[in-house]
Amino acid sequence: MTRGSGRPGAGRRDAILKVAARLFAERGYHAIGMAELGEATGLGRGTLYHYIKSKEDLLHDIAREYIADLVEAAERTLQDEAEPAARLRMLGRELIEKIASHQAELTVCFRELHSLSEPWRTEVLELHRRYEAAWRDTMQEGAEAGVFRPYDPIVLKGVLGMYFYSYLWLRAEDSRAPVAIADRLNDLAIRMLVPAIAASSAGSR
Amino acid sequence: MTRGSGRPGAGRRDAILKVAARLFAERGYHAIGMAELGEATGLGRGTLYHYIKSKEDLLHDIAREYIADLVEAAERTLQDEAEPAARLRMLGRELIEKIASHQAELTVCFRELHSLSEPWRTEVLELHRRYEAAWRDTMQEGAEAGVFRPYDPIVLKGVLGMYFYSYLWLRAEDSRAPVAIADRLNDLAIRMLVPAIAASSAGSR
Repeated sequence: MTRGSGRPGAGRRDAILKVAARLFAERGYHAIGMAELGEATGLGRGTLYHYIKSKEDLLHDIAREYIADLVEAAERTLQDEAEPAARLRMLGRELIEKIASHQAELTVCFRELHSLSEPWRTEVLELHRRYEAAWRDTMQEGAEAGVFRPYDPIVLKGVLGMYFYSYLWLRAEDSRAPVAIADRLNDLAIRMLVPAIAASSAGSR
Repeated sequence: MTRGSGRPGAGRRDAILKVAARLFAERGYHAIGMAELGEATGLGRGTLYHYIKSKEDLLHDIAREYIADLVEAAERTLQDEAEPAARLRMLGRELIEKIASHQAELTVCFRELHSLSEPWRTEVLELHRRYEAAWRDTMQEGAEAGVFRPYDPIVLKGVLGMYFYSYLWLRAEDSRAPVAIADRLNDLAIRMLVPAIAASSAGSR
């Protein structure tokens, strides 16, 4: 899914995106220039332009690729797993693992989406919309199956907010692995969705 | 709590902050200059400098005042309401009402905190820490009283994430009043916290 993967130089391009995301997250998109990016990547400004067209091109790829990956994974999960609660737990794991490995990218996207010109901004927003739809469909199917309460868009937003907010507090150096944190948040999401929590399952974890 | 309130010109200053927050939220802190702010406020650049020292001074006040207000309200609520679940619902209402009335300010704060110099950034982060502590204390007291499950910092982050994320989807023009949305989110927070949800109360709003 990564734009340019498979093309020669894709690995180099990915490495540039990673460095740029980290610098943009640490000090802000507007504070970082192409000369500094050339230095930080060890390529120099001239060679950098061999891989990317502009700073905004970088911003576009940073804001786009993590959510494009999430959409691809979520739409596959919707096909592979029919049971709504199990599917929701898979979506939760995919999301937290992506946030943990792409914290800088999420920080940049949340912060700088307004800095992207059209049609790029609309493209990224559309990917977010498709991603949210995967969760919505899961909740609606769960409601139809009687596994979840009737679908409520505020619950959808509450659940997504709970996961996405973790870009601010998840730490890669955290001793709790992302999967363990995802499982805890998944339990909370299920609590928000089920018609009732039995005393036996409520006390688990 | 508003810095400068009570001083002559405080109302004018508040109006300037409101306009600046809206412009920063719409187009980015870095995209807006003092000349444009002078025009948008109808004061002109010269008069604008009568009320504020610099653009960063504005950013500081925008990022600071809503969270300072929330801290003040939350610490008062901790004194006024002893019952943990009732107190949590009050905190939830205060938070959603503040987010609904200060959506531009939250957008600017989430986006531009890294643009604030020290000691201002630390001051704003410390206010967020104090605010989170009010929720944490409420959850811990609820756990000690047996009303909530044992305290879990991931539940704290999950609950706060659910509320804060609403700065991205709450709309002032929304037909659902902020109080009604707060009550729905409060129900979800209680679901995350209680030892078990009985079938009878689980279906209630």
